[in-house]
Amino acid sequence: MQKVCIVGASGYTGVELLRLLNLHNEVQINQITSRQYTGKALVDVFPHFQKSKYQNLIFSSELTLESDIYFLCLPHEASLDLAKKLIDAGKTVIDLSAAYRIKDETAYPEYYRFSHKYTDLLEKAAYGLPEVYRNQIKNSKLIANPGCYPTATLLGLYPALKEKIITDEFIVVNALSGISGAGRGLKQQFHYPEAFGDAYAYNPLKHRHIPEIEDKIKDISKQDIKIRFTPHILPVSRGMIANITFKTDATAEKLKEIYQSTYKDEPFIRFVEKPPHIKHVAGSNFCDIYIAKDERTGSAVVITAIDNLGKGASSQAVQNMNVVLGIDETKYLKELSEVSILFP
Amino acid sequence: MQKVCIVGASGYTGVELLRLLNLHNEVQINQITSRQYTGKALVDVFPHFQKSKYQNLIFSSELTLESDIYFLCLPHEASLDLAKKLIDAGKTVIDLSAAYRIKDETAYPEYYRFSHKYTDLLEKAAYGLPEVYRNQIKNSKLIANPGCYPTATLLGLYPALKEKIITDEFIVVNALSGISGAGRGLKQQFHYPEAFGDAYAYNPLKHRHIPEIEDKIKDISKQDIKIRFTPHILPVSRGMIANITFKTDATAEKLKEIYQSTYKDEPFIRFVEKPPHIKHVAGSNFCDIYIAKDERTGSAVVITAIDNLGKGASSQAVQNMNVVLGIDETKYLKELSEVSILFP
Amino acid sequence: MQKVCIVGASGYTGVELLRLLNLHNEVQINQITSRQYTGKALVDVFPHFQKSKYQNLIFSSELTLESDIYFLCLPHEASLDLAKKLIDAGKTVIDLSAAYRIKDETAYPEYYRFSHKYTDLLEKAAYGLPEVYRNQIKNSKLIANPGCYPTATLLGLYPALKEKIITDEFIVVNALSGISGAGRGLKQQFHYPEAFGDAYAYNPLKHRHIPEIEDKIKDISKQDIKIRFTPHILPVSRGMIANITFKTDATAEKLKEIYQSTYKDEPFIRFVEKPPHIKHVAGSNFCDIYIAKDERTGSAVVITAIDNLGKGASSQAVQNMNVVLGIDETKYLKELSEVSILFP
Amino acid sequence: MQKVCIVGASGYTGVELLRLLNLHNEVQINQITSRQYTGKALVDVFPHFQKSKYQNLIFSSELTLESDIYFLCLPHEASLDLAKKLIDAGKTVIDLSAAYRIKDETAYPEYYRFSHKYTDLLEKAAYGLPEVYRNQIKNSKLIANPGCYPTATLLGLYPALKEKIITDEFIVVNALSGISGAGRGLKQQFHYPEAFGDAYAYNPLKHRHIPEIEDKIKDISKQDIKIRFTPHILPVSRGMIANITFKTDATAEKLKEIYQSTYKDEPFIRFVEKPPHIKHVAGSNFCDIYIAKDERTGSAVVITAIDNLGKGASSQAVQNMNVVLGIDETKYLKELSEVSILFP
Repeated sequence: MQKVCIVGASGYTGVELLRLLNLHNEVQINQITSRQYTGKALVDVFPHFQKSKYQNLIFSSELTLESDIYFLCLPHEASLDLAKKLIDAGKTVIDLSAAYRIKDETAYPEYYRFSHKYTDLLEKAAYGLPEVYRNQIKNSKLIANPGCYPTATLLGLYPALKEKIITDEFIVVNALSGISGAGRGLKQQFHYPEAFGDAYAYNPLKHRHIPEIEDKIKDISKQDIKIRFTPHILPVSRGMIANITFKTDATAEKLKEIYQSTYKDEPFIRFVEKPPHIKHVAGSNFCDIYIAKDERTGSAVVITAIDNLGKGASSQAVQNMNVVLGIDETKYLKELSEVSILFP
Repeated sequence: MQKVCIVGASGYTGVELLRLLNLHNEVQINQITSRQYTGKALVDVFPHFQKSKYQNLIFSSELTLESDIYFLCLPHEASLDLAKKLIDAGKTVIDLSAAYRIKDETAYPEYYRFSHKYTDLLEKAAYGLPEVYRNQIKNSKLIANPGCYPTATLLGLYPALKEKIITDEFIVVNALSGISGAGRGLKQQFHYPEAFGDAYAYNPLKHRHIPEIEDKIKDISKQDIKIRFTPHILPVSRGMIANITFKTDATAEKLKEIYQSTYKDEPFIRFVEKPPHIKHVAGSNFCDIYIAKDERTGSAVVITAIDNLGKGASSQAVQNMNVVLGIDETKYLKELSEVSILFP
Repeated sequence: MQKVCIVGASGYTGVELLRLLNLHNEVQINQITSRQYTGKALVDVFPHFQKSKYQNLIFSSELTLESDIYFLCLPHEASLDLAKKLIDAGKTVIDLSAAYRIKDETAYPEYYRFSHKYTDLLEKAAYGLPEVYRNQIKNSKLIANPGCYPTATLLGLYPALKEKIITDEFIVVNALSGISGAGRGLKQQFHYPEAFGDAYAYNPLKHRHIPEIEDKIKDISKQDIKIRFTPHILPVSRGMIANITFKTDATAEKLKEIYQSTYKDEPFIRFVEKPPHIKHVAGSNFCDIYIAKDERTGSAVVITAIDNLGKGASSQAVQNMNVVLGIDETKYLKELSEVSILFP
Repeated sequence: MQKVCIVGASGYTGVELLRLLNLHNEVQINQITSRQYTGKALVDVFPHFQKSKYQNLIFSSELTLESDIYFLCLPHEASLDLAKKLIDAGKTVIDLSAAYRIKDETAYPEYYRFSHKYTDLLEKAAYGLPEVYRNQIKNSKLIANPGCYPTATLLGLYPALKEKIITDEFIVVNALSGISGAGRGLKQQFHYPEAFGDAYAYNPLKHRHIPEIEDKIKDISKQDIKIRFTPHILPVSRGMIANITFKTDATAEKLKEIYQSTYKDEPFIRFVEKPPHIKHVAGSNFCDIYIAKDERTGSAVVITAIDNLGKGASSQAVQNMNVVLGIDETKYLKELSEVSILFP
């Protein structure tokens, strides 16, 4: 039985890990940390955990080294140092921040306002997108868990990049995200009365997930492809859609074949005949993918849907943990995904 | 392994049963019926079931007698006849309609516009509220699964009724329900653009759940207590609150003690310090209860929250099935409840 | 042309006044204050005002005495002192806080945590519910604009209180409010991802609006009637429902007659045949009222709907201003109400 | 005083016209038609009109020729014939359907499943986008009021098309729409419990608004530019965003200059510094526009927001009416827009 510590457990990704690991019988959460709630029991802060097995866990202020696996749900710069320390202590680290996601360290000063101090470790970190980097993940102790927009976008692009069917070096991605993606910290624009009934694009020119996505595009395709990326706020809590367009000479049949063969053994990729619904993936680790050729414009249309807190964060982190542990990758994630999708 | 048939499986309570029984290893769904979707596979009608074990079940038009347990998710009058036929064939029936809920058969013509033809069977039916009628349920083949408003109201009243602490024979219940409670049939007032941002009371004088609630109040308390009941529409899909007020001489301490001792061994009743949130129970079989004394007015305040499709319908039906089968009542419902509550 | 100052103009009631006074040709807003946004133009803080006539007003930090009419959109205790100062300076004050609403000053320490320093002024203040206190409003310089719950409740009770048809001295009020009623200040429970899809009761025993409502009940009825009051959070921005129940001997016909004759000349009271919808009043100054007799329980059912920021706050403040100024009470409020109700 | 008839007045665009014309003192609605509600009064079908001046208008089954101006809120093919008949009778027609929008009549069989019978009249019809076609509108009796997606897209493209700064003949448009855009007819996917919390793309390859948009692109630019267009469903009632990307050599400054000079005298175009919010335009006739250059990819980013029932349908129809009548184009639309935008 592996011991797990969730660092920063009172944010949305931390609380989601507590939900997801509730059923997992091969690991045991033995520590949760939170500065804000130090000394309080989980159930006192989040009453919906009443009667769950972890309800009486107490938030501690600082982590100990008694666990085997550490999920870091922290600000980027805090993760940067802590991951180094834990790796040096021989621990397995699954970092939900961006601190070790981008191989090109020059992106950090520009997009994250810090210089990367541990470039050796950065090199060794595996990017935690199992459908693409499963082997690296298996052999690494530090998993950089992908961002939500990069997950939705890269799963939609991977087969095309791998097969080099993109003709223009220009991809347009429009993505929509539920507000939980912005975290639990209070902001005026996410005060309920103001966000109610609203939707809008944001950071249309410079979003932090752009260098992360382009870094992996380059790694996969060996091409220098740029994305034109606009994220939008959706007035829901959970759910993300990425709408991806690129020029291609591949036929409709070829496109489908490439995508389906690439993902044919993936337990969490589902192909759908009509563009995917966020409601069909919310609560789950699934990524639903629609793929078609727009003959009128000679372009491919790929539309993906994930739960930004699920496949876009915490359930993907659990999937990565399973890969690292060498146990069945779908462990409890598949059952859990199936029962967590509420309809209607 | 018991074989299960869900009759009327394409409505919301039927689809919810499919979600809930997905994890249940002691029963096997071997038939689902639907007139509307006859011949179609589950996954083709409800694509979110892709990759689940029941995805390829085909909706059939008529049921066979090959199953052991029948969940009836049908209009009241259709259930009336079918339950009789199935009971005569020796089957176990869990009826989610109102056809066998009210012992006083005079209520049917007035509130449901039909006369009850099977009063013998009506007498034998157990009212499927395990916290109150567990023994009857155990010993019956026909379980009348309670309505959502009656569940939320009666769980909030049962300890008070049992202990006869209500002084006036007058209880005021204001209840709020998510729109899934109205079913999957299309209605103008539930067209998204019209229901968006709206809330309102409805049927303020005569709601079908009134005779059901008063029938059980009488049975439990042996008093002839009337309720002043108003249901309200909440602009969400799932979730129900019942706000219950009655005059009492019991002190605050006495009230709490009565409630807590009544439910102390109940796996799905959770007491909360602040009025319960629908979001803390949505997707689950829990009923969260707040109880307090309002000294200013000499009245008790009981506020309960359930998922109208969960404890108010389908997960309660599964709980009843477990009771009838004599297996662990929490089987898969407790785990499932814990993982299905999404926060945020 | 009267000059208007909105003190605390960047909160929701202040911004709503800016919307409402946009069309009003007999007053001119010449000052808006806000500590948070001092020095900024209205349009820079609230871009939806672009192209409106007040878009370039600058938020100032402190008010001057150059205006004739002051709307106070401030915390209760800040209003307490400022209202006194402005009245002493001969100004007309419409106070949207509770500082001058309750004649029984003993309520302040218990419910608002301050002692009332200006009991003489408190006595002179008119309670700004024109349908009940129009004459006092006309003759006062200090209008205590009612709370949202008190407006919805008292408009539903006034005819019954005036005609003394309530037999028990016990009224049950369950009210539902959109979240804008909680103001613009950030709180964890109103962070969008947490409030999304949720609903719950709050302050079930002791809400600040209880003494305000009971103060007016006593004034109108000369009876010592208590209310059992529970407010609930609705997951919308705007809208409020009050569901009111009391025992009465009056017949259904008598009830309707009392209500309709009381309000027959009121421009903003609308009787509805079915319980009112918040969407039919949002944006407006209307109060929609449903009235019926529940013969089964011998009680009256009154259900009212208002916009908590409209008739429950800012548009009622404008109505009060019109009364004080002696101009047509419906001025621009009626047209504005008609065009602001969006369907769907 | 011009007499107005709204044909098909019980759909969303019809009801919106009733709201908008409420304040308009130069026209008088003298007839409203509806097959579904024939013989009923407006207020009985839509109770929120109580106290408005048109509340007692009776829906008639067939129109008469007593009006001067006819707003057609009908299915496309019904409009086709009726517009012809009314024009022949000398009436002014503002057609909210697509029947006369596309000059290239070959689009009709493919996208609307009918052949256009009145190509002469089609030629004479003016496309009702005043910012582009004001002169034609002034001189026509038949105004083809644009679709909502075309309005949001073309207002975002017009300056760029006019100035020929688009280098690739390929434009990517991702648009988001509130559900009222789908009309008042009931559909399973818009049943509240199913649409709640959901979002998704639809018709990703072939949407009816594509030929309409490309027809105008060609007319304005004389280039044969194709759009890659995906519409998405937003879980709100009203509001639309169009996110538009195209390659250009124009600098950021040049882009802004072109856009601002093109629209400098337009009363309903507002430029915004950050991407526009649907909540800032809902209820209004405004189109908010954000324009920027993405230097990384050499492309322009234009994001527009409108109310799909406002500038995307009914308030644009009123603007067109004003143009045709030769009266102040902003008449009552500007005041109305200002007061109808609810914040929060």
